[in-house]
Amino acid sequence: MRLSQMHLRTLREVPNEAEIPSHILLLRSGMIRKQVSGVYGFMNMGWRSVRKIEQIVREEMDASGAQEICMSAIQPAELWEESGRWNAYGPELWRIKDRNGRDFCLGPTHEEVFTDLIRNDISSYRQMPLMLYQIQTKYRDEARPRFGLIRSREFIMKDCYSFDTDAEGLDRSYGLMYDAYTRIFQRCGLDCRPVEADTGAIGGSNSHEFTALSGIGESEIAYCDKCGMAATTERAACVDAPAQTDVDALPLEKKLTPGTKTIEDVAGYLNLDEAQTIKALLFVTYDEEGKENGYVAAFVRGDRELNMTKLVNALGIAEHQIEFADEEKMGAATGCVGGFTGPIGLHDCTVVVDSELPGLKNLCAGACEEDHHYINVNYGRDYTGDIVTDLKTLKEGDPCPVCGAPVRHTRGIEVGQIFKLGTKYSESMNARYVDENQKEKPVVMGCYGIGVTRTLAAIVEQHHDEDGIIWPVSVAPYHVIVTLVKPADETQTAVAEQIYAELQQAGVETLLDDRRERPGVKFKDADLMGIPVRITVGKLAGEGKVEYKLRREKDRRELTVQDAIAEAVGLINAERRG
Amino acid sequence: MRLSQMHLRTLREVPNEAEIPSHILLLRSGMIRKQVSGVYGFMNMGWRSVRKIEQIVREEMDASGAQEICMSAIQPAELWEESGRWNAYGPELWRIKDRNGRDFCLGPTHEEVFTDLIRNDISSYRQMPLMLYQIQTKYRDEARPRFGLIRSREFIMKDCYSFDTDAEGLDRSYGLMYDAYTRIFQRCGLDCRPVEADTGAIGGSNSHEFTALSGIGESEIAYCDKCGMAATTERAACVDAPAQTDVDALPLEKKLTPGTKTIEDVAGYLNLDEAQTIKALLFVTYDEEGKENGYVAAFVRGDRELNMTKLVNALGIAEHQIEFADEEKMGAATGCVGGFTGPIGLHDCTVVVDSELPGLKNLCAGACEEDHHYINVNYGRDYTGDIVTDLKTLKEGDPCPVCGAPVRHTRGIEVGQIFKLGTKYSESMNARYVDENQKEKPVVMGCYGIGVTRTLAAIVEQHHDEDGIIWPVSVAPYHVIVTLVKPADETQTAVAEQIYAELQQAGVETLLDDRRERPGVKFKDADLMGIPVRITVGKLAGEGKVEYKLRREKDRRELTVQDAIAEAVGLINAERRG
Repeated sequence: MRLSQMHLRTLREVPNEAEIPSHILLLRSGMIRKQVSGVYGFMNMGWRSVRKIEQIVREEMDASGAQEICMSAIQPAELWEESGRWNAYGPELWRIKDRNGRDFCLGPTHEEVFTDLIRNDISSYRQMPLMLYQIQTKYRDEARPRFGLIRSREFIMKDCYSFDTDAEGLDRSYGLMYDAYTRIFQRCGLDCRPVEADTGAIGGSNSHEFTALSGIGESEIAYCDKCGMAATTERAACVDAPAQTDVDALPLEKKLTPGTKTIEDVAGYLNLDEAQTIKALLFVTYDEEGKENGYVAAFVRGDRELNMTKLVNALGIAEHQIEFADEEKMGAATGCVGGFTGPIGLHDCTVVVDSELPGLKNLCAGACEEDHHYINVNYGRDYTGDIVTDLKTLKEGDPCPVCGAPVRHTRGIEVGQIFKLGTKYSESMNARYVDENQKEKPVVMGCYGIGVTRTLAAIVEQHHDEDGIIWPVSVAPYHVIVTLVKPADETQTAVAEQIYAELQQAGVETLLDDRRERPGVKFKDADLMGIPVRITVGKLAGEGKVEYKLRREKDRRELTVQDAIAEAVGLINAERRG
Repeated sequence: MRLSQMHLRTLREVPNEAEIPSHILLLRSGMIRKQVSGVYGFMNMGWRSVRKIEQIVREEMDASGAQEICMSAIQPAELWEESGRWNAYGPELWRIKDRNGRDFCLGPTHEEVFTDLIRNDISSYRQMPLMLYQIQTKYRDEARPRFGLIRSREFIMKDCYSFDTDAEGLDRSYGLMYDAYTRIFQRCGLDCRPVEADTGAIGGSNSHEFTALSGIGESEIAYCDKCGMAATTERAACVDAPAQTDVDALPLEKKLTPGTKTIEDVAGYLNLDEAQTIKALLFVTYDEEGKENGYVAAFVRGDRELNMTKLVNALGIAEHQIEFADEEKMGAATGCVGGFTGPIGLHDCTVVVDSELPGLKNLCAGACEEDHHYINVNYGRDYTGDIVTDLKTLKEGDPCPVCGAPVRHTRGIEVGQIFKLGTKYSESMNARYVDENQKEKPVVMGCYGIGVTRTLAAIVEQHHDEDGIIWPVSVAPYHVIVTLVKPADETQTAVAEQIYAELQQAGVETLLDDRRERPGVKFKDADLMGIPVRITVGKLAGEGKVEYKLRREKDRRELTVQDAIAEAVGLINAERRG
């Protein structure tokens, strides 16, 4: 492609809306264009990279035995009602009506649709294992779309669903996908870590997130260098502090603690360690129609952080069904007092207690009375929980739940996730088969997603410098850019055209920058667009020499035309499959 | 792919909903699956064919210099308000809201979006010509989706937009697309005819439909064997009957014509030729908000048929803004009388008169009075029209508007359409450039669509027999099916596996029917699925022989294994590009 004829508009300025490198650079290099909030169009080069990612995904999915199909983006509400998710899914589900007033959604995921498909097709154990996938446009009506392609309202996903007769079959399918995902992200040039993950709104028993390591990532990961444990902090189990079996419970005592509304305040005032206090967090919950249906008080040790995902899972509700409570309103109903709430004296609310609190003795907690705390609060004697479970967030330096070594934290972008769904959907939607013994059983399912457009952004997050993108060859929109320094110079033009023609003949995807622009502009654009190889045809063209430079290296070399072509062809062929 | 592992469910029965061969066969062969009315999912084989059509489209679009991008399916209402189509488009526009109540539509076409894109990018004549295209999912909320992929609510389209500085540039771009479309449909194996077409709701000055000839097609085409004229009957101009300049106007006379409510009745009663009468058709029109805003009476010669497209164009409204009137209600307002309406005595309605009526003398028309007609009605003396224009439908046998020879009619499926939009969108949306002389001018646009999924159906319409589909090699989901007659027979299995392996190694896309099914079932499925070459491995396998059969021919031949492989590879390589 000749840049003089290409639809291309690069930007020198950083667009206002963009905060992170991938968003800034994809916009500045003209690869994507914002249409409305959270909705992007792909320009020619961006689209070429998307299609290369799709092709890598397709090849690896096919190699794993999955079969490609393509279902509609429009999904009837009836299917979601069957699975129970029409109400449960929350406002991210983009609900629409057709001209007859019938309810649909723009699918954010396709569990219902694929379950519906196979419940009509699968009747016998002989028809499994089966894995079906699609690469398709999905929708999530995000409250706050941000970070460009990282969290957008329209995005391309590969979603795959496996159908097996039993848990062992699911383990095999899950393993095939785990391996395929590992290869896919490797081929895309991503430094990616599979981590144990929460199963969230999709439900199921077991899940891994494939996380591209990145400081701007929305996923926080806890990992252990010693044993290899890796999990999202949402999901990571915490080790409880050892139970204080050798400590005696002292008598409960109420203390005047004026103005000590925070853990830090009260610990300071009473000269206690924060680990000797109990922290209270108050919530209101909603039913599936969005009506208030109760209050929740959650308690963790004062130095801990509450893990919302664990709380939500313990309550068996969805994330959008819970919010921080209005303390004044809640106080009247439950007896809590803002800044002085503790487990003693609360009523009419669900009390959820972190699993380590029952083992700890003589803690300090709010007294549900202005300016007062209790000390020597002990579980069982002074208070109990309706639910006792791990509610803590695993923090950096906490002991690893597997081996006990201190864990570390990092951030990453979730580019893929694999789930063992089990029989969640096959039970609710009645997808059954007959086994070898003529017994009817529910199909055992898994689901496996890759955010294709999010992967594009993650690649840019990991492969850029201050001048622009540095595409891995496997997903680069073009492999080589031939920069013609002076289009008015006949010799230079002839050499550039020759290189352009020969590279294309060799199957190398090549740009010819034949624009009548200053060389500085051309170099800046080439760096911004991140084309892996730049061959500059300038003053030395008359001697048959050009400058050869890789985007990922600082070095420039003078090579003969033929050597430059040979080097480029060799490099591209070695790396194009990723 | 081994059929034993493939997700495949073929149907022996004709599905209830399906009326036409492509719909029946695509469903029966398991290539598509209905999700809801007018919305289909593509199973593995159907999707493979769709992707092959897409690839042909892509190659030819790229070869013509168009650049692929991909814009969102979700389009903000604001853009459609700018172009004036938010209200004008009618209920087929699938309007949706996001969680903030903002209006969007699911795009049925992308003129607004592409105009918006380039008005920000194009500022100088140097940036043109430019052609941008996408292959993308589109939506039309059809009142009556039907015929499977022919008229569905979700479909894949290639849409391309050209941007030029002037009309000559547009002519060139239009010509490039005309040629590309011709090649695309040839490569897809379609017998396709470019015909002059109405420009409909998209607007513009000049258009061709690419019509795949087919008896079930919704497009009716008038064509002339003598001069090559071809146009949709919606659009085809009609030759007016010669003006009767040598006939004197006789005195107007009112006749009692009891019960003669039709042209046939009155012509019979008064012993006239139907060509000596005037036919009235009555309509109510609506404004863009759907409120009634007036009545229309249209008049054509008694033996003619009114062309609704021409009437709508004459009135300058959209098709959904007009309906047949309630005669009783309209009678009170305008003086018309059901069955006896004529141009004399009508008031308070727009009178539209066919262009040949002013030249004809002494016609018979309703008298706007129960059981009465006038005879000797003459234009100018007795009545006039607010609009006089060609309102007639060109019927089979009518004179060709170009050469006068009798025209013929045929039907076809509109698989592509190209439009000269001119400055319709660039004017309303202010997409301007500066020319060589620093003068600001509107960009001159064209738009060019191909219904990709509709093309799939059209191919099946043209390529099938009573047993199933007969895919052209270029779009066949697989090229060869190796039918293993007895999977329990080791020799047969070994030979079939060898052929399967060798064909795949040669790059031929091959199915191995290794299912434990009766041979009859396998042959029936192979015919239904329409795989171009079938190699049957049966009893003669021990002698190294197989049966070789093309789906498109009746003949079967016994060949050695090596000859069968060589023939298949040769045929596929010769035809795979189409």
